[in-house]
Amino acid sequence: MRVYLDNAATTPLDKDVFDAMTPYMLEQYGNPSSIHAHGREVRSAIERARKQVAELINAAPSEVFFTSGGTEADNTAIRCTTDTLGITHIITSKLEHHAVLHTVEVMEKKKKARVSYVKTDGKGCIDYADLERLVQEAPGKTLVSLMHGNNEVGNLCDLERIGTICRENNALFHSDTVQTMGHYRHDAQALPVDFMVGSAHKFHGPKGVGFLYINSDVKITPFIHGGAQERNMRGGTENVYGIIGLAKALEISCTQAAEHQEHIAGLKQRMIDKLTASIPGIAFNGMSGNVEESLYTVLNLCLPPTEDNDMLLFNLDINQISASAGSACSSGSSIGSHVLQQLDRDHTRGSARFSFSKYNTAEEIDYVVEKLSDLYAVKA
Amino acid sequence: MRVYLDNAATTPLDKDVFDAMTPYMLEQYGNPSSIHAHGREVRSAIERARKQVAELINAAPSEVFFTSGGTEADNTAIRCTTDTLGITHIITSKLEHHAVLHTVEVMEKKKKARVSYVKTDGKGCIDYADLERLVQEAPGKTLVSLMHGNNEVGNLCDLERIGTICRENNALFHSDTVQTMGHYRHDAQALPVDFMVGSAHKFHGPKGVGFLYINSDVKITPFIHGGAQERNMRGGTENVYGIIGLAKALEISCTQAAEHQEHIAGLKQRMIDKLTASIPGIAFNGMSGNVEESLYTVLNLCLPPTEDNDMLLFNLDINQISASAGSACSSGSSIGSHVLQQLDRDHTRGSARFSFSKYNTAEEIDYVVEKLSDLYAVKA
Repeated sequence: MRVYLDNAATTPLDKDVFDAMTPYMLEQYGNPSSIHAHGREVRSAIERARKQVAELINAAPSEVFFTSGGTEADNTAIRCTTDTLGITHIITSKLEHHAVLHTVEVMEKKKKARVSYVKTDGKGCIDYADLERLVQEAPGKTLVSLMHGNNEVGNLCDLERIGTICRENNALFHSDTVQTMGHYRHDAQALPVDFMVGSAHKFHGPKGVGFLYINSDVKITPFIHGGAQERNMRGGTENVYGIIGLAKALEISCTQAAEHQEHIAGLKQRMIDKLTASIPGIAFNGMSGNVEESLYTVLNLCLPPTEDNDMLLFNLDINQISASAGSACSSGSSIGSHVLQQLDRDHTRGSARFSFSKYNTAEEIDYVVEKLSDLYAVKA
Repeated sequence: MRVYLDNAATTPLDKDVFDAMTPYMLEQYGNPSSIHAHGREVRSAIERARKQVAELINAAPSEVFFTSGGTEADNTAIRCTTDTLGITHIITSKLEHHAVLHTVEVMEKKKKARVSYVKTDGKGCIDYADLERLVQEAPGKTLVSLMHGNNEVGNLCDLERIGTICRENNALFHSDTVQTMGHYRHDAQALPVDFMVGSAHKFHGPKGVGFLYINSDVKITPFIHGGAQERNMRGGTENVYGIIGLAKALEISCTQAAEHQEHIAGLKQRMIDKLTASIPGIAFNGMSGNVEESLYTVLNLCLPPTEDNDMLLFNLDINQISASAGSACSSGSSIGSHVLQQLDRDHTRGSARFSFSKYNTAEEIDYVVEKLSDLYAVKA
């Protein structure tokens, strides 16, 4: 048995999604921009997919733009607002994904925008009063970029509350919703949000495709220039099978959300309960120990001090368990988690992120708890 | 029988490419940035793919960066040189693909670079003396962007000659090689080129993935900011199956290039000969009528005047033939071909681009010639 508990990094492709994609790989190969029958059939499929995604997030099809993934979508929202809407001030947090954080840093370095970071508490939660003050005092046109669910510690922010602060102060609101899209309901019409983001491979869809929701009140120019695709908003031949797969995956995720949430939240609670019982001194980073108030898909452990701290993920790996230290996107670098650095915690203690999907089972959780207990309970 | 002769827009996915991709869709689902076994297996596959692509174009693996397609690669080459290498002057032509032309126009509009357009003759061929003069007289650091094979009229430029002019005058050279990659040999070490581009779906690979070759002497910063992927050069979880498919498709294309070229050039010559015999007054746009001196994959017809000019593609379509007016990327817009506008030709005559692949047959060509003759020879 090999146990995959790194679903915040990426999720296995749903077989039904693969089956939906296959005809567009093997048979329907036309370029959707071509006006002949080969192209028109594929164009129709892409527009059906767009309509489907739009319906699932209660947006208009014209508000959905397909991209190569969440990172491109985040880049588009941030860079095209500074480039074309005159945004000169960005408010974000130190706990954002690098797709936002590094993009914002580049905007600051290029002197396109000043950047303020909202205060967060010891658990990484946003200080809403500080946010309101920052938005009110912002010297120029302002974009607020705050993620919905934190990919490392699972903290959830209140999109309604942040969006209302933004609307009252004439600021735009971008939320990196990559970790919640497909796992929570997003109602684009009800939420005071200008930009939301989806990445298909986070909800059992294919890698290399995502989408950006842009509120119809907001008009930006393209990030990637070229052909007339995506209504002149994103040049480049469409990733057809990716788009078909994304829509199918989002449909499955949204229609089965309640059932999956119950199953996965149950696994997470089971892991919390069993670990708490078997490993003295274990704690949970950020809000992740609270199943109700954090992503039900993410649990970030703060483990008792041992001499083997640095070997934790390696030890899990040789015990056939795939978990991570934090964001997969940063695993290639040797720098520790920028998210954990912001929290009040004993930074000498080891951490590990376990993230769950509909495919995980109670048996897998029990196996992981047993192995972790072997590694920690005895040595502790 | 439905005949697909729009292979410059996109090519059918090779079944062997699909088979190479499938395990990475169904089994090997890890995030290549994850350090556990699920991730490492996929990381290895991506690096094998990179090595394979590098070998096929005689580059170093560290010079190959995977992107979401040719358009993103072109945007990266143009925008990151103006942003980070101090390029203030761009020399290009009016016959480039919109991925280059629109990007260059934006750079000019944002006052990041001045743009000069090299003279082209009545057939759309570059005036090399004019190019040399422009490069010599350029007032600042200069990027030359000229495509290798024109997607509409098939004109081929001399990369060696242009690159030498650039090197002698300290200019960078980007070539949009989307139409030739996989169809012609590209030797990155031998060619004086700084940037080349591949788009998998133009050589029977998947849509939504491409690559940018960057000469190791040239250092640019990323276009898409985020995680540490592609050695910090392109944020975003990799399109794993796309990359695997791209490498497989390029391998097949390059190893079978001579055989495919002979077959396809034969089809093109057959079509030229038969059309010339059966439709009085037919001509060929750009260099495309000369099989030796143009893309062997592209034939652009200049048809005799008829009352039905505007209905040509529609008539072909109802006769089960998929062809195009020009670039698929512009088909969504109502504006005529910007490439044909640059040529010396009777602009009242109808045009149609036929583009071929290894899957086309002599029977298909004969069928198309018969239908075209029905439409033109009789009425003419």
